[in-house]
Amino acid sequence: MGVKLQEAIANIKPVDKIWREKARRHIDQLAIPLGSLGDLLDLAEQLSGIQETLKPSVRKKMVVTMAGDHGVVEEGISLCSQEVTPQMINNFVMGGASVNVLAEVAEAGVTVVDMGVAADLSFLVQDGKIQSYKIAPGTRNIAREAAMTREQAIRALETGIEIAGNLAADEVELLATGDMGIGNTTPSSAVLASLTGRPAAQVTGRGTGLSDEALAHKVRVIEKALTVNQPDGKDAIDVLSKVGGFEIGGIAGLILGAAYYRIPILIDGFISSAGALLAKDIAPDAVDYMIAAHQSMEYGHRFMLEELGLKPILNMNLRLGEGSGAALAMNIVESAAQAMCKMLTYQDSGVASPVQ
Amino acid sequence: MGVKLQEAIANIKPVDKIWREKARRHIDQLAIPLGSLGDLLDLAEQLSGIQETLKPSVRKKMVVTMAGDHGVVEEGISLCSQEVTPQMINNFVMGGASVNVLAEVAEAGVTVVDMGVAADLSFLVQDGKIQSYKIAPGTRNIAREAAMTREQAIRALETGIEIAGNLAADEVELLATGDMGIGNTTPSSAVLASLTGRPAAQVTGRGTGLSDEALAHKVRVIEKALTVNQPDGKDAIDVLSKVGGFEIGGIAGLILGAAYYRIPILIDGFISSAGALLAKDIAPDAVDYMIAAHQSMEYGHRFMLEELGLKPILNMNLRLGEGSGAALAMNIVESAAQAMCKMLTYQDSGVASPVQ
Repeated sequence: MGVKLQEAIANIKPVDKIWREKARRHIDQLAIPLGSLGDLLDLAEQLSGIQETLKPSVRKKMVVTMAGDHGVVEEGISLCSQEVTPQMINNFVMGGASVNVLAEVAEAGVTVVDMGVAADLSFLVQDGKIQSYKIAPGTRNIAREAAMTREQAIRALETGIEIAGNLAADEVELLATGDMGIGNTTPSSAVLASLTGRPAAQVTGRGTGLSDEALAHKVRVIEKALTVNQPDGKDAIDVLSKVGGFEIGGIAGLILGAAYYRIPILIDGFISSAGALLAKDIAPDAVDYMIAAHQSMEYGHRFMLEELGLKPILNMNLRLGEGSGAALAMNIVESAAQAMCKMLTYQDSGVASPVQ
Repeated sequence: MGVKLQEAIANIKPVDKIWREKARRHIDQLAIPLGSLGDLLDLAEQLSGIQETLKPSVRKKMVVTMAGDHGVVEEGISLCSQEVTPQMINNFVMGGASVNVLAEVAEAGVTVVDMGVAADLSFLVQDGKIQSYKIAPGTRNIAREAAMTREQAIRALETGIEIAGNLAADEVELLATGDMGIGNTTPSSAVLASLTGRPAAQVTGRGTGLSDEALAHKVRVIEKALTVNQPDGKDAIDVLSKVGGFEIGGIAGLILGAAYYRIPILIDGFISSAGALLAKDIAPDAVDYMIAAHQSMEYGHRFMLEELGLKPILNMNLRLGEGSGAALAMNIVESAAQAMCKMLTYQDSGVASPVQ
């Protein structure tokens, strides 16, 4: 293992204010009406702050799709059978999934990580198609017991940090989170409820498309998980271990790693944002490195973004996961970086500035 | 001149329903929960319908930035002086403006067209840097008289159609609109008010950043323009000629041309959407070819999108124009096309479909 969790936490620093201010001064001199590129140049300011340069670069991009299974599927909370998790991993490997296609358009790579899939994927690992950090073949059923031990939760987080470290060593300049795991909106809603105190009914959505009846059942399962496990909302690692998932822990760790290695990271939808909430609770300054890719259709996502204080780039009614929304937003981040690097100022362009 | 306005209008057809349905059937077989890529695959369906194929292609992309000046600037409705129009054109030619940088990221070209700039740009035309279809050196002051004659309005529209034809001959597969013209939010608001009957105060915004007082003055100028000219809201060409602008007419024509040549066209912000409203009134089926790039910060833009019945891709508080927002959204359209072409179905991927 690479960097320990405590070491990472101790070294996550807020993005430098002086560099943000330098970036803002440059932005305010560009030959456009003040503020007229809105959120795009706010994003450019963030990139400049993170990289401590007026010429930010996010050319080398990687989506990390973390996969895991969930014991709670035995409660019948998903329309899909658990076999779909390895089947979708196979689809990622074939390059035929949404995240592959959208990452390709963004000229990004896709790294698929087995954090805890309930199937033998060793043939894909041997072929170098996916990375294995399998902690266990799926979590335990949170409606009956804790998802994992505290040690396993820490291991999931440290795995994410290690993967970020490997990608930092590969000079990746923009990361994106992604997830695959049948049933994983259930632990994500449970994490959100635990960390914010919101009732399960408010933060639970239809996942892959549940009926009203099935949704009511899912809410009851989440309520049971919270009652049985009593996660401590003030201790994110306790929440992760009791009602989380291996891929959710891996995503949280990847985000902590991004902050530690000072790499901007696009947060995909509902499951990724559950990871982001955990990362924020563990190291509040990690938020400075996060970029919300999109507003998911999954109902509770709005509360996650609110809690993170992030405004999403896209609002396209996505609710797929995989990292698809984050891949789709990567080009917008590239655009922000290029705008910062290449747009001319009033002075350099010879354009007269408006009379205020 | 190429195709006449009446010929174009007569030959703009709605997008083929059968192809849309074929596309939808393919989309519904993709190995994702039904509808989980939201607006992205709605866009893919639109592209497939326009191009009548299940493998849409939008690789060759062009932003057309139409420039014109406005006599109404003498009423003091803008913070910028009219010299900024040619100065910004020079910035486009140098490649240092927002639209250049964002188009480059999208691998799109930028075509700059002088529709009616109040400055001599012949040196740029001779060098092949911009195209000139200059109708007049700026419109007349709409607070006192009609912006242009009816013949000039038709010429502006036919110019846009001709440019679309030239780009269609160059095999451009995705168009985007853009504008440059100091003062052009004023005629755009006047067009919106004329076509929808909304009061000037409701549809007038701050443009490049007016104060409360300057905004109130701008509203009065627009009210005066409507009173003096009495544009007929049931006749888009009358509206264009009385309170429009040369670049607004050019944009409307470009959109009509896109529909005539069956090319999808991204509509930028407030000024472009004024053109889109005119195009819709002239040929209602043209809407089928339009894609709203973003929700502009300019207040009245929401009414335009409502009237067009379009949902914007981006909501990033942009209010720059130039075609910058349309360029920024081009990659999302590319992503939609690629998703349609490359994502695997349940059958081809071996993924089990959810039990409904």
